[in-house]
Amino acid sequence: DALGVVVTVSGEPGFEPLVVLELASDIKEEAVVWLLSRIRDPQQNGGAELLVEHLGPGVRPQEKENPNLFLVGASWQRLLSGAEDLGLFKEYSDGSMRGFTCSNKHNFKDFTGDGDSFLSMAECQHIIKHELDTLRAREETHVPGYPQAKLYPGKSIIRRLQSKRILIQMFPLHHKEELKRLSFSWYQKVRLSLQPLDSIRHYYGEGQALYFGFLEYFTFALVPMALIGVPYYLFDWEDYDKYVIFAVFNLVWCTVILELWKRRSASLAYQWGTLSRKQAFEEPRPGFHGVLGFNPVTGREEPLYSNAKRQLRIYLVSLPFVLLCLYLSLYVMMVYFLLEGWVLSIHDENPTFWTGVLLFIPSVAYAVVIEAMNLIYRYAAEFLTEWENHRLESSYQNHLVLKVLVYNFFNCFASLFYIAFVMQDMVLLRQSLATLLITSQILNQFMEAFLPYWLQRRRNKKMVRKVQGRRVLEDKALPLAEQVRLEADMSTYLGTFDDYLELFLLFGYVSLFSCVYPLAAVLVVLNNITEVYSDAFKMCHVFKRPFADPAANIGVWQLAFEAMSVIAVVTNCALIGMSPQVRAYFPHSETQLILWTVAVEHGLLALKFILTFLIPDVPKHIQIKLARIEFESLEALKKKVCLFVLG
Amino acid sequence: DALGVVVTVSGEPGFEPLVVLELASDIKEEAVVWLLSRIRDPQQNGGAELLVEHLGPGVRPQEKENPNLFLVGASWQRLLSGAEDLGLFKEYSDGSMRGFTCSNKHNFKDFTGDGDSFLSMAECQHIIKHELDTLRAREETHVPGYPQAKLYPGKSIIRRLQSKRILIQMFPLHHKEELKRLSFSWYQKVRLSLQPLDSIRHYYGEGQALYFGFLEYFTFALVPMALIGVPYYLFDWEDYDKYVIFAVFNLVWCTVILELWKRRSASLAYQWGTLSRKQAFEEPRPGFHGVLGFNPVTGREEPLYSNAKRQLRIYLVSLPFVLLCLYLSLYVMMVYFLLEGWVLSIHDENPTFWTGVLLFIPSVAYAVVIEAMNLIYRYAAEFLTEWENHRLESSYQNHLVLKVLVYNFFNCFASLFYIAFVMQDMVLLRQSLATLLITSQILNQFMEAFLPYWLQRRRNKKMVRKVQGRRVLEDKALPLAEQVRLEADMSTYLGTFDDYLELFLLFGYVSLFSCVYPLAAVLVVLNNITEVYSDAFKMCHVFKRPFADPAANIGVWQLAFEAMSVIAVVTNCALIGMSPQVRAYFPHSETQLILWTVAVEHGLLALKFILTFLIPDVPKHIQIKLARIEFESLEALKKKVCLFVLG
Repeated sequence: DALGVVVTVSGEPGFEPLVVLELASDIKEEAVVWLLSRIRDPQQNGGAELLVEHLGPGVRPQEKENPNLFLVGASWQRLLSGAEDLGLFKEYSDGSMRGFTCSNKHNFKDFTGDGDSFLSMAECQHIIKHELDTLRAREETHVPGYPQAKLYPGKSIIRRLQSKRILIQMFPLHHKEELKRLSFSWYQKVRLSLQPLDSIRHYYGEGQALYFGFLEYFTFALVPMALIGVPYYLFDWEDYDKYVIFAVFNLVWCTVILELWKRRSASLAYQWGTLSRKQAFEEPRPGFHGVLGFNPVTGREEPLYSNAKRQLRIYLVSLPFVLLCLYLSLYVMMVYFLLEGWVLSIHDENPTFWTGVLLFIPSVAYAVVIEAMNLIYRYAAEFLTEWENHRLESSYQNHLVLKVLVYNFFNCFASLFYIAFVMQDMVLLRQSLATLLITSQILNQFMEAFLPYWLQRRRNKKMVRKVQGRRVLEDKALPLAEQVRLEADMSTYLGTFDDYLELFLLFGYVSLFSCVYPLAAVLVVLNNITEVYSDAFKMCHVFKRPFADPAANIGVWQLAFEAMSVIAVVTNCALIGMSPQVRAYFPHSETQLILWTVAVEHGLLALKFILTFLIPDVPKHIQIKLARIEFESLEALKKKVCLFVLG
Repeated sequence: DALGVVVTVSGEPGFEPLVVLELASDIKEEAVVWLLSRIRDPQQNGGAELLVEHLGPGVRPQEKENPNLFLVGASWQRLLSGAEDLGLFKEYSDGSMRGFTCSNKHNFKDFTGDGDSFLSMAECQHIIKHELDTLRAREETHVPGYPQAKLYPGKSIIRRLQSKRILIQMFPLHHKEELKRLSFSWYQKVRLSLQPLDSIRHYYGEGQALYFGFLEYFTFALVPMALIGVPYYLFDWEDYDKYVIFAVFNLVWCTVILELWKRRSASLAYQWGTLSRKQAFEEPRPGFHGVLGFNPVTGREEPLYSNAKRQLRIYLVSLPFVLLCLYLSLYVMMVYFLLEGWVLSIHDENPTFWTGVLLFIPSVAYAVVIEAMNLIYRYAAEFLTEWENHRLESSYQNHLVLKVLVYNFFNCFASLFYIAFVMQDMVLLRQSLATLLITSQILNQFMEAFLPYWLQRRRNKKMVRKVQGRRVLEDKALPLAEQVRLEADMSTYLGTFDDYLELFLLFGYVSLFSCVYPLAAVLVVLNNITEVYSDAFKMCHVFKRPFADPAANIGVWQLAFEAMSVIAVVTNCALIGMSPQVRAYFPHSETQLILWTVAVEHGLLALKFILTFLIPDVPKHIQIKLARIEFESLEALKKKVCLFVLG
């Protein structure tokens, strides 16, 4: 009865369901009994010491409804010890962030007598997920009833159940009232204020909150660009060559905002307690396989897979495959440009209505082919990365991100680079950029928010109709059993990957080419504003609640954005060098022009690296706080030593 | 009686002198009494709990001899608790490196019953230095007898005494027998084996050992270059344009060796226990001054100096000054080239003996001016960095290194760049390179080793003559009092700065221009081999023993070498682009040639960064060991939590 609202499940009081386990509908009884007892067992017997309940059937149960849904919760003490176990950082009474320990729990800021509301629901769910994930087999050689689901001492039970599809899914429950409050302050009221990042973090965890923080930061960072862009666009409409100042501004801007974001991100992560938190030792991901052996770090038995073999797979199969796809994509692009030229010549020779229609065909065909290739490539990339057999989820994610990133970058920008530097046609570049930005924006909003919303709405309505349509507001006060089933049917949120990818490409459009189309920044700002709303909506109403992800930064994406900003320096310098204004300074010697451009570019790149080096990644006041904690722990150690020496 | 050889000082047994304190010869008696009592006081009273002895007068004391020399030592228990306090890492019984703690001292590998020889003499001296440095004032407002030497609670006493020149110097004593063993295995026997890095580390500490390790590594890394260079030099003597392959090899080589050095350095640092050691909180350096306030990290009273003011001094005074000096150096270079051309034209017009002599004058004058400017700049850089008022010694060092580095780089390479890219005269470039390398090598060896050796030898002889010349071998079995005085008179070793700077410049000659003068690598290898001997000799016999410096890597120099390797890529690409071979591929268009060169250069730079990113900085097996220790500490925490929950 410690954590917020208490819901009564099947008559028993005092149990708040936090996480749902959906087991296969045809699971063997003995497996269920064994799993539940392992989850409930006290910790000294190697159990997880959590509370589990079976979810009763819904109103008017249907044939196809899965009866094997279980609710997991935990006592208040268990959650606190889990928080210490995880190394969760909370605010201390002196305002600094410290690793939570049960022994001095009363020195933490929001810890009231009974610990109520000290841990957020997202934190509780994360703790339960961690405890379930680290629930390990003892002497069992396989899951009872499933001889093919092998176990060995130390193997994570949940991971094995997941990889054998005995456990279908595990997800945290929404908290209806909190969600309503959050969504109201986030996107339902029209406002000019910032996003409620702390509430987002409180409800969805740090990873999500950092994404929305970055989205917001990025939007604000674009505002100066947009403000400069509008008059440029309005008054120099046809004067494509007056973009030197804009290009210079561009490359300074994209270096500075990324550096400042690092500082902002560090501030947020410090405030949320993830900056200096030590990550627990990472478990192998569910799909990882190999010969059984002993992990050199933990000494536990687990599958081992030689790193050399993985490297061979990466460098001899994945890398050539990616290069081949890039080549193919380049080839398709060249065919498109050929077709376009051919169609244009036909239309010019003998313009009729039909040749006018024909003009659109190459673009449409190209768009369709690109989209299809993108889809196929994405599946191939996932397959290959799975086949590379990475031990850690994080390493799997990094390799997948890298593959998808490179290909998407190529697909989006190759044609623009071709137009800019091979064809050197700035009018066409401007048109293409505008078309790309506007269509991708419309498509994205549609695919990302409205389509899933519409599907979800249909599903909700069905469910509500099933519960006899007693109320008009769909998801208010549904019985818990229905609510859980409704959430179980929602699509799974696949992480921030696609959201970041979209921002990455938008950043590319702005930083690489906005000097030839100054309105790009304006369009991206508009896109980002709607993106905040559609992403917020989709998080709250379209997808299952995701588990909190205690991220300290935006990870590999910081690197990707920085790489893009380096490419932006090179591109902008080249565009400057090609501008008629600059060419006018070197009327007789193209060689001189190029040498100067290259020299300036090298200077700017050097300056960029020096700037990156000079601007500290963590703001001074946070460095001091971190140093203070470090110093105090050293002093504590010293005192211990003194006592030892004297005693 | 715990640590190695016990020397009897003034009749008292059981005291091994480790560190010498030389106080001002006219110091007031009350200050001495106070200082000694503070050093001897037990720790719970705020003292350092060390042993101190007054050094008696030497044989035949002279008028000018300083009577105020004190020997500091410590009991065995005190040294062990100091080791824990410092966070010293030692080898554990399972072969891993762990932070030493007194409570489980018996689980450490070399810990025998009484702890004898567990800590090396260098470690003991480092511990004593740390304990003396952190000996803090209590209620004293000034040093007794010196009202101008202000103190406040928490101020390091030794730092104040140093800054007021009451303490003249503090240095660790040599250990004659160990030194003899070390110098024999290091440089006195002719051998083909590697340097005894572990013994060097044992005697001089990690910072020194890493320098010699780097010197050795660098020499070996140059061997392939030297081997390829010799046939190039022999068979393509006059064929300066056949250097494309050499240049390509060059830029791959300089990227790879630096990456591999990081791994080697991590291995060494792990093995020596400095890799994962936490640095204690750094004290302000002796010369630091400011308004008294409270340090936000420690909460102790200490001088504070606003960071903004320091930044202003750096960016508004130091930076312009450095730029001005660079400009001046460039100006002098241009004057030199003008003079050279003028003298050459005179000689060509009317060649006599005197015009032949005249030919040498510009070079000699330039060399003298450069040397003088270098000297003046060095003083100015030290003055400015001191004036910037850095709080930490490390930050002071970094700013000084940066200033000196940039200027030296400019001085050494500006003329070569000018010859290579403005004059485009490869024959002259080759001559200049050869002259620079050979003369600098000879000068360096002379200035670094033979001159100080000769001076030291004279001093030793005087001392020996004073002790009645009883023995022929100079420094054998001198009485302790004489030995200490002899060492106190030796020059102070000023750190590895100049040694690294020399290596850095040699690395520059090889990586930037060795494709036009392939013999450069051979000359540098020869130089390095003699450098090992002369540096070793100078460490052992010319300088005072330095305090051990527990370094985990070569610090700012790694960055400097990496910056140089980036410049090397650019330079080599430009040299390749200028070669007649490559020019032959683009007979009609210089623009095409330049564009291709720039494209290749960008590709290589990208590849370099990717390589830097892909090659892990710490070898796998050490990563595993570090992860295991991390994992075990997390598990230990977990067990504690379980006990707490159950208890």
